[in-house]
Amino acid sequence: MAQTIIGIMGPGDNPSQQDLDCAYELGSLIAKEKWILLTGGRNAGVMEAAGKGAKESGGTTIGILPDEDRKRMSQFVDIPILTGMGSARNAINVLSSDVVIACGCGAGTMSEIMLAIKAGKNILLLNQTDKTIAFLKELEYPNLLFVKTPGQAVAEIRTLLKNR
Amino acid sequence: MAQTIIGIMGPGDNPSQQDLDCAYELGSLIAKEKWILLTGGRNAGVMEAAGKGAKESGGTTIGILPDEDRKRMSQFVDIPILTGMGSARNAINVLSSDVVIACGCGAGTMSEIMLAIKAGKNILLLNQTDKTIAFLKELEYPNLLFVKTPGQAVAEIRTLLKNR
Amino acid sequence: MAQTIIGIMGPGDNPSQQDLDCAYELGSLIAKEKWILLTGGRNAGVMEAAGKGAKESGGTTIGILPDEDRKRMSQFVDIPILTGMGSARNAINVLSSDVVIACGCGAGTMSEIMLAIKAGKNILLLNQTDKTIAFLKELEYPNLLFVKTPGQAVAEIRTLLKNR
Amino acid sequence: MAQTIIGIMGPGDNPSQQDLDCAYELGSLIAKEKWILLTGGRNAGVMEAAGKGAKESGGTTIGILPDEDRKRMSQFVDIPILTGMGSARNAINVLSSDVVIACGCGAGTMSEIMLAIKAGKNILLLNQTDKTIAFLKELEYPNLLFVKTPGQAVAEIRTLLKNR
Repeated sequence: MAQTIIGIMGPGDNPSQQDLDCAYELGSLIAKEKWILLTGGRNAGVMEAAGKGAKESGGTTIGILPDEDRKRMSQFVDIPILTGMGSARNAINVLSSDVVIACGCGAGTMSEIMLAIKAGKNILLLNQTDKTIAFLKELEYPNLLFVKTPGQAVAEIRTLLKNR
Repeated sequence: MAQTIIGIMGPGDNPSQQDLDCAYELGSLIAKEKWILLTGGRNAGVMEAAGKGAKESGGTTIGILPDEDRKRMSQFVDIPILTGMGSARNAINVLSSDVVIACGCGAGTMSEIMLAIKAGKNILLLNQTDKTIAFLKELEYPNLLFVKTPGQAVAEIRTLLKNR
Repeated sequence: MAQTIIGIMGPGDNPSQQDLDCAYELGSLIAKEKWILLTGGRNAGVMEAAGKGAKESGGTTIGILPDEDRKRMSQFVDIPILTGMGSARNAINVLSSDVVIACGCGAGTMSEIMLAIKAGKNILLLNQTDKTIAFLKELEYPNLLFVKTPGQAVAEIRTLLKNR
Repeated sequence: MAQTIIGIMGPGDNPSQQDLDCAYELGSLIAKEKWILLTGGRNAGVMEAAGKGAKESGGTTIGILPDEDRKRMSQFVDIPILTGMGSARNAINVLSSDVVIACGCGAGTMSEIMLAIKAGKNILLLNQTDKTIAFLKELEYPNLLFVKTPGQAVAEIRTLLKNR
């Protein structure tokens, strides 16, 4: 039966320390819930930190890579999906996630938040700047939740999954 | 020789009248410059309005459609590229455009602005809310220009193309 | 109004001289019919030869490139569509063509013939080996036609377009 | 650490009973080797049979679906990757597989064999007609192996993985 897949999106390049800590903790909590972690799979930033957290708590991780090969793959990816499609793979990241979490926000992350809105996904947001929050609130998308901690994120996901 | 292709992105659903007027005028001006117009190709919103403007001024239009068929295609598309890839085609929209213009902003549009940043494209913005502008300025992406009118947009594109 | 787009597929690498001559003549005849030529857009093999034929007869050419940039683009492409998707763009090549012609056959070409069958497209075949023909005939796909010359191909396309 | 992923490709529609039996046994053997099974994920033909085999032997299964949702998903998929890209996802199927097995041959299957050749993958073939074999041999692609039984396929994969 199809497993529950939780996607963590966030900056690959120039993440803040807070983004990395948050991603690590999210990965760890997701693993403990027996959910599968999905990321963009690269050995960088939030993707790498979330994967590390998940693997160190015994979880399973999927990486949807932009590349045709594993050269830039994170060592914490169990299941590499090689798309060879560059940023077009961002659409797959969100379609394949039961719930999308954005932890911090680079350009790629925001593209994923937007594609998740287009796909009608539930989206949780952590570590966002005031201006990002103001922009997102203006969109009035109903399935967007702002949370303050990884623990809160997981509690919200539990509720969302129960109500499906 | 490869023609100059200018992409106009903007809301397909629920565009404002100002977005539509702006897209129409942009399409018209692009046609007069002998540039080729690229849009997402649907018979809706900014895509349709820009195409109408371009065709009524004798231009050529490309539509990069999310679908496998022409059912939702705008009548103002000369060259339909059928991707069958849904929103993943947004990546193709920006990669194929020499310059990307965002006229108004829906979720799809913002995904395209973000993918254009990832691709290092020159981006012009029109008809954006204060909160969208504040969010975008915070990214400090150097090739992002805010303009006030379609005429200004075209003047900026002329300069950008000259300096390539 | 949407133009008629004819796709020419064929080996990029190691084409035979006969494939190249055939592609050149097809490109030329397509241009004379005022149809738009679509190819994979690279500066190699059948893609380049077909584009050359079309341009030297005053036609318009679309190149659906596998890359994110124009480094490997044929000089005979008017409208470059940059997909950044590698061979996944082969699906776009066939979806966007009103009729697909395969002139010679490499691995990429055969993937396109197969995707064209999946998409229900009309397909014309030229310069195929006996074993390729035997394999294709066994599929019993109704919209597959084997022709002997570029002239015959164009005559068949005229009939197909009339009966749409 | 990245798991070993073995892709089984084969007809979704109109498979022969022999294709289905073969796919089931392959799925089962792959599971027993602790390799992960990758298929196109639909509830049809070889995809469904291979998944059933793998799950009944305690394996893990990935399904790379052409759709944006799970409506046509096989019940034997553990990890659904929703691409929303139609047949363009065939490229992902082969890129993500360490070894590609084709069990029987529809148009989609042959597109995957061809894309696997383009990607330089090791490919094993089972249950192919004489004409398909004759066509494939003519390509002279070095990493193509014809085997007679699922057991032989697994033995060959073991050797291939050892020699990586």
